[in-house]
Amino acid sequence: MKNIYIIGVGLIGGSIAKDIRHLNPEITIYGIDSNPEHLDEALVLQIIDAKAEFGDLKNADAVILAVPVDAAVTILPEVLDLIHDDTLVMESGSTKVAICKAVEKHNKRRNFLATHPIAGTEFSGPKAAVEGLFRGKTNIICEVEKTAFKLQERALAIFQVMGMRIRYMNPKDHDKHIAYVSHLSHISSFMLGKTVIDKECNERDIFDMAGSGFASTVRLAKSSPDMWTPIFKQNKVNVLETLEEYIQNLNRFKNYMEADNFEAIHKEMSNTNHIKEILNGIH
Amino acid sequence: MKNIYIIGVGLIGGSIAKDIRHLNPEITIYGIDSNPEHLDEALVLQIIDAKAEFGDLKNADAVILAVPVDAAVTILPEVLDLIHDDTLVMESGSTKVAICKAVEKHNKRRNFLATHPIAGTEFSGPKAAVEGLFRGKTNIICEVEKTAFKLQERALAIFQVMGMRIRYMNPKDHDKHIAYVSHLSHISSFMLGKTVIDKECNERDIFDMAGSGFASTVRLAKSSPDMWTPIFKQNKVNVLETLEEYIQNLNRFKNYMEADNFEAIHKEMSNTNHIKEILNGIH
Repeated sequence: MKNIYIIGVGLIGGSIAKDIRHLNPEITIYGIDSNPEHLDEALVLQIIDAKAEFGDLKNADAVILAVPVDAAVTILPEVLDLIHDDTLVMESGSTKVAICKAVEKHNKRRNFLATHPIAGTEFSGPKAAVEGLFRGKTNIICEVEKTAFKLQERALAIFQVMGMRIRYMNPKDHDKHIAYVSHLSHISSFMLGKTVIDKECNERDIFDMAGSGFASTVRLAKSSPDMWTPIFKQNKVNVLETLEEYIQNLNRFKNYMEADNFEAIHKEMSNTNHIKEILNGIH
Repeated sequence: MKNIYIIGVGLIGGSIAKDIRHLNPEITIYGIDSNPEHLDEALVLQIIDAKAEFGDLKNADAVILAVPVDAAVTILPEVLDLIHDDTLVMESGSTKVAICKAVEKHNKRRNFLATHPIAGTEFSGPKAAVEGLFRGKTNIICEVEKTAFKLQERALAIFQVMGMRIRYMNPKDHDKHIAYVSHLSHISSFMLGKTVIDKECNERDIFDMAGSGFASTVRLAKSSPDMWTPIFKQNKVNVLETLEEYIQNLNRFKNYMEADNFEAIHKEMSNTNHIKEILNGIH
């Protein structure tokens, strides 16, 4: 691998680029982005070696797509149209069913590997890119059997230099489970932020009272709406299921409080406390 | 101040003890706790210099109460009964109305200062105590005018060595606002943890998919039910109000999704994004 193209040089694409630089000393990383300012920033920050355009993709050994999931569905087939027979193409978004469906009948389907490297921060853009973001984190690979074996190996070499743990899963299961452990957290956080802001907007001093617990719980409410709206749209059915269950649990908690059943409140919290052990190992 | 008594040598009491040690070199810190193991641990960890009992409080220059808020309501009047006329007594729980009411007619009311040093972690017990936990954090003082001026000064000396910023507020406003910026976060976090555990309890591998965002959002679900149940009980009216509004906001988000109104979803998130600026300064 010498020529790697990153499409979307933001938090995820930029962080992948920073890790990939260690793949081999002769590598050249090219950036493509619909936002010219981001592309300039990525060049100045030495995240990429040069700017490129879609027409250049014929020279790629690997293409990594890191754009919002609605854009990915459109761009991915176009990328597959442009590459040569031996190019690896990967996409890294937070939904997998729609992406895989978009290229299931493409004659270059075997050049594509569907991945979800699970890492991130609440920030976005090239300035948010950090080396080592993915180290020790999980990468979900979907429909691995549909990717040419030689190109799977090339992908694994990339994930090895990124330090990722690999898990294999079908797109449907991926989208269902990720709704619980990622998408729902974002909604709970955004709506918590909204509830407090709506109430306290005229009393800014009140936020002096907010401690690190509040900051931690609403951290994800800083996330990019441009990235998250298409995720909720593509994973609507699963996300609605999780949201429904979450609201039910909150209503049950409220009913216990209204009935002064604080024994039940204590029990609900105790039963959830073992999240401690579950979270061990997540950083 | 030479003899300081900490009642409740857990996360909060233990962390205060660690800071107070820097107050002056001659200080002796005594510990009182209903849990004998915690008291032994605090001694071994050198958080306290010696164990004590309620009968010893007559020797105290200052008493700091750091117990669950239901216990505080009972213990605080007893402490005031036992101290001499020149002792400062402070309480540090997360609710203030019930505490202040419990001693409003006590003949030693002027010896008492109601405080809420807003800091903590999701851990508990003496092992969770850390030096500097309160540095740069906010301490809410309630009904300051009801405390003897000389004892206010003594308290401020303690808060200065802890590095806290002081804010003054009446108990009613404290309990109302803290419900939004602290108590609600704990419920949202506990119920998020519950929703995911209920769904995924048979598929532990799924938690491999959980990233740092999930960990951050459910962090507070590790908190102690013994500490939090009495808080929700004492602050029931305010907490129910915040919970009602939170559930309404989640339902609105769900309705937008069901109606495929993703423009509204984007707008909801964008409007909440300025939590970024609000959170600047909270660590």
